[in-house]
Amino acid sequence: MLDTVSVALPENGYDILIGPLSETAARFRRLAAGRRVLAVADTHTGSILPEGTALFFTSGAGGEFVFPAGEASKTFATAAAICAAAARQKCDRRSLFVALGGGVVGDLTGFAAAIYMRGVDFVQVPTSLLAMVDSSVGGKTGVDLPEGKNLAGAFHQPRLVLIDPAFLRTLPMRERIGALAEVIKYGVILDGAFFSFLEQHAAGLTAEVTDPALFGRIIRRCCELKAAIVVEDEQEHGRRALLNYGHTFGHAVELLSNFSLSHGESVAIGMAIAGRLAVTTGFWSREDELRQNALLRAAGLPVRLPRKYNAAALLEIMRHDKKCRDGRVVVVLPCGIGRAQVVADLEPVRLMEAMEQCHD
Amino acid sequence: MLDTVSVALPENGYDILIGPLSETAARFRRLAAGRRVLAVADTHTGSILPEGTALFFTSGAGGEFVFPAGEASKTFATAAAICAAAARQKCDRRSLFVALGGGVVGDLTGFAAAIYMRGVDFVQVPTSLLAMVDSSVGGKTGVDLPEGKNLAGAFHQPRLVLIDPAFLRTLPMRERIGALAEVIKYGVILDGAFFSFLEQHAAGLTAEVTDPALFGRIIRRCCELKAAIVVEDEQEHGRRALLNYGHTFGHAVELLSNFSLSHGESVAIGMAIAGRLAVTTGFWSREDELRQNALLRAAGLPVRLPRKYNAAALLEIMRHDKKCRDGRVVVVLPCGIGRAQVVADLEPVRLMEAMEQCHD
Repeated sequence: MLDTVSVALPENGYDILIGPLSETAARFRRLAAGRRVLAVADTHTGSILPEGTALFFTSGAGGEFVFPAGEASKTFATAAAICAAAARQKCDRRSLFVALGGGVVGDLTGFAAAIYMRGVDFVQVPTSLLAMVDSSVGGKTGVDLPEGKNLAGAFHQPRLVLIDPAFLRTLPMRERIGALAEVIKYGVILDGAFFSFLEQHAAGLTAEVTDPALFGRIIRRCCELKAAIVVEDEQEHGRRALLNYGHTFGHAVELLSNFSLSHGESVAIGMAIAGRLAVTTGFWSREDELRQNALLRAAGLPVRLPRKYNAAALLEIMRHDKKCRDGRVVVVLPCGIGRAQVVADLEPVRLMEAMEQCHD
Repeated sequence: MLDTVSVALPENGYDILIGPLSETAARFRRLAAGRRVLAVADTHTGSILPEGTALFFTSGAGGEFVFPAGEASKTFATAAAICAAAARQKCDRRSLFVALGGGVVGDLTGFAAAIYMRGVDFVQVPTSLLAMVDSSVGGKTGVDLPEGKNLAGAFHQPRLVLIDPAFLRTLPMRERIGALAEVIKYGVILDGAFFSFLEQHAAGLTAEVTDPALFGRIIRRCCELKAAIVVEDEQEHGRRALLNYGHTFGHAVELLSNFSLSHGESVAIGMAIAGRLAVTTGFWSREDELRQNALLRAAGLPVRLPRKYNAAALLEIMRHDKKCRDGRVVVVLPCGIGRAQVVADLEPVRLMEAMEQCHD
């Protein structure tokens, strides 16, 4: 069974194919025909790749580049090393990069593809749930700086995305749960029916063995929702900002926890705080907030802000977020399950109130 | 006297203002109003900047970043350092970078602006003749890798270019002469009347004191010619490739000389070789070739290939040029003074012949 989601951008549209790699490989081979291919993976992806997959991607002319797994690799230095590897492999402007891995591999490889010889094509093969539902779709690429995450990057759309849910079998549960924060986020801000679907299948979300049919449906819907947003607003001048729901608070929590809380856990807490704020400002109802938080909990995610994270300290971090305009904090607030809007003119005291009400 | 050349790109057009900075400053201040500004210069530019200029650019909120002058600084590490400085200065997506210097400063600052928070605006203030007539117009930005020059970069147009010919007074003669190779190139490939103008003013090109009126006219015409090409073909899919005239051979010569020949000297030799090839293949006449080479010589540029640079070795380097497609060397040949075309199907032996005929 093969699902296709089309990202219908006017100039650089592409397809997301969801199904076994054995069925999507032909499409990749057509794209790669006659071009040099540089396959990029991290040390972790290398070990979980099914026998022969790496070989299959580099069966034409080209080579591989593997770097140490982990966010610490997401640097200018690794992007430079990918470009250098491409040069040594004699990649030219027509060459193709392939990202085999999670978000770090995708962001780095996409960034290297955006800048190598001022831009070459690339293909995303996400292997984590987070990359499947979020980072591999939409063309945001980048690297971290000591001063902050994703501070340098480019908008560069892939030419093709191949998603094989079979990769999820080996994904650690904590990573799966983290990605579910983004999955639930799509439901809250964009699609009430999808939110209800997730409520009905809550038990399956954290079942020890992933149900490929369930996750195939979840991934497809998330890709459809994200694709629609990206087509409307490729470079985040407007509606795409809705996808930051839970992230303004979440990034601050993640940073203040010194990354002891995962991205997904931080986003879940951020959604709980934004949901609280939406109640106190009258954007949505107490019932909506309870439904959101119940689903987050059912997925194994936290919805309380540990007391040690001070509201004033979080606010200070939010003021330096790269999405902040002239020091004004911009937040996304839901106005019912399935709808949300960007709000820029809230008093800082309202934000702090909401954070304090979420303290555990 | 203030000249304006408009680069009429459909989405990101901008103006090039040619005249004293004292007259163009108002336009800059309007653009920078209410935004944080990061002024980037190298150690050399810092020392030649007229008293107060640096201050003037950073009179609003913002700061400066100065890096060691020279091509050796044109690396990922310096681009990362510029982004880090921007982050420390609390630059956001609306901030403005300013490049004060020659090609290296412009290429690096433009690249940093292209990627900082996935793209911020930048202004070019070129201080060398080469940057004024070439690198500050057109939006090509980038850094070098150990594997090759400009191997990573982005197309990112400036929002404004301010050219003050007064900076040329302090430019070393060898640098001025190097830039004249690009100036003469514009005449050969695009504008016979401009070529004749340069012939008539040949003595002024290398006069000890630069004539601001003469150089003002030269800079304006070069900017007009380059702007017209860039508007037609922003990302070099077609006609923009004409600007590589002399560069395919020239880059190889520059590399084989281990940079003991300057870029301009190498391009002049490259133009002489391409001019020779255009005679042997019947693209232009022996008389055209003689006119081109006489003007290059009058400008103080070499037109003979030192015998120690072997034709076979040069050809091998050209085969690995980033503009090379599938190992086929693409050259630009003039078909008369003022016209040129891209030629991709020449036998390697013809290229070697032309190189050998240019040996000194």
